Amino acid sequence: MSRIAYFGPAGTFTEQAARSLSTGQELVPMETIPAAMTAVRKGDAELACVPVENSVEGPVTATLDGLAEDSPLVAVAEALLPVHFTVLTRPEVRTVRTVASHPHALAQVRHWLERNLPEARVVVASSTAAAAVAVRDGEYDAAVTAPVAAQTYPLKVLAEGVADVPDARTRFLLLSPPCPPPEPTGADRTSIVASMANRTGALAELLNELALRGINLTRLDARPIKGNFGFYRFFLDFEGHIAEARVGDALAALRRRCEVRFLGSHPRADGVRATVSATATDSDFAAAAEWVRAVRSGERA
Amino acid sequence: MSRIAYFGPAGTFTEQAARSLSTGQELVPMETIPAAMTAVRKGDAELACVPVENSVEGPVTATLDGLAEDSPLVAVAEALLPVHFTVLTRPEVRTVRTVASHPHALAQVRHWLERNLPEARVVVASSTAAAAVAVRDGEYDAAVTAPVAAQTYPLKVLAEGVADVPDARTRFLLLSPPCPPPEPTGADRTSIVASMANRTGALAELLNELALRGINLTRLDARPIKGNFGFYRFFLDFEGHIAEARVGDALAALRRRCEVRFLGSHPRADGVRATVSATATDSDFAAAAEWVRAVRSGERA
Repeated sequence: MSRIAYFGPAGTFTEQAARSLSTGQELVPMETIPAAMTAVRKGDAELACVPVENSVEGPVTATLDGLAEDSPLVAVAEALLPVHFTVLTRPEVRTVRTVASHPHALAQVRHWLERNLPEARVVVASSTAAAAVAVRDGEYDAAVTAPVAAQTYPLKVLAEGVADVPDARTRFLLLSPPCPPPEPTGADRTSIVASMANRTGALAELLNELALRGINLTRLDARPIKGNFGFYRFFLDFEGHIAEARVGDALAALRRRCEVRFLGSHPRADGVRATVSATATDSDFAAAAEWVRAVRSGERA
Repeated sequence: MSRIAYFGPAGTFTEQAARSLSTGQELVPMETIPAAMTAVRKGDAELACVPVENSVEGPVTATLDGLAEDSPLVAVAEALLPVHFTVLTRPEVRTVRTVASHPHALAQVRHWLERNLPEARVVVASSTAAAAVAVRDGEYDAAVTAPVAAQTYPLKVLAEGVADVPDARTRFLLLSPPCPPPEPTGADRTSIVASMANRTGALAELLNELALRGINLTRLDARPIKGNFGFYRFFLDFEGHIAEARVGDALAALRRRCEVRFLGSHPRADGVRATVSATATDSDFAAAAEWVRAVRSGERA
């Protein structure tokens, strides 16, 4: 049976994302994001599921660095999970005196805790799932966890849908070794990482190549390259699929300017369809190329 | 005596940064980054010291969101600290069986721990300073802390300069209510946040305004605006000072295009001087403006 390596432990948001993206594969928790990627690179797993960005916390730098380094991996699918926490306790607990979770989770439920468990001491755990385990073992009274943890651990649900920012979301990628991308759907996302020396106007030039072809950017993260001072990596997500003319043309233009690694074209989890301007459709590109061919051969002018 | 509110507790990297930026003010630890900013907004402190970016972990989103929201604050100085940890223990500890720290710190010393303390159980604390306190109180055997913690707590230094990535650095800002910026030095950084609806080419247009005036970008972070779907904030840092013609001209051009908030012009901690191209010096701008004035008045053509 094929396997999906995911950033564990079990009972976290990433497991929940991996479940939603699985088509029957075995789910294998890995201790770190790099370890999940390495499992795919070594062939120990077919796919890896890792978080890539959170609308409150920003980009997941371990994932970005891991995509830019070592052998290439491409995203073949994505999942978007609302960051709504579940608060779990043991059935016999009457008063919650301690509440545990991962610091990132605690940061996202601070106001809720102040309003609903003002007397509880807040303690830090290494993951939301570790907090649930500690509650099960009697170490603490309550845990702030991913909803999936309620199915994994024999605990009582004290509250569901807990979040200070109601629309906070985390996006997860399903990564594969390079392979033919999934078919275009009209609501696709393409991701690349472009590496270049820092000089005035360099990033403006890259973004112009996209804008000139009517391609809408959906995310941009700039990261300095470790140990290579003054060199930057730009992680760009934009609308469209590499099978489309405007995207292929833009990627070729970027490739002439700098080092580019393709990180995948796949359907968007939010289903938002790309708006293609009247000058940038596949038939616009085909007609223009045909005209250049005809002019070159002397048939037209 | 005037006060600098900083993201505490005492004995962390932010305290170390606040000390280096202090000119004799009292240092007051605050529990969170927003609380440090609020202290300045309410007038409880004159200045606030907060982290803004880490070369390994990326941007500090709480600081970015805090700068874009509520009443304006401007950065009047910055500090750049190498992220080198100190490992502290009690003098009587013979064998380190447990080592504690904040998860971000643990992530940055993972390899060192595997090589040097392979038998130690790694436990999570709410801050590097909280880990030092827990070691002092006998709860754990060793703590991974900021160097300044060795001066704060009566513990033994087991190792210094500990870091998996040797050149990892964190940048800190000293924030003030709006005030005249410090004098230009030739090695300055200007920061803004620009807010706009997501549409094709919008960011390319902003960056072109900078590139056309020879202004080199040093950082860009794109953040979705909470609760305002499809609207983005772009945090831009670039070379130069608002007192310089090319920067003032670019800021005016950006202001015509979108909402812009000025986040300060101040000397760069790394002392890197801006390279101003031959077409973008203050005298170039003055000569060009004089020519337009002369043409308008019919003196020249």
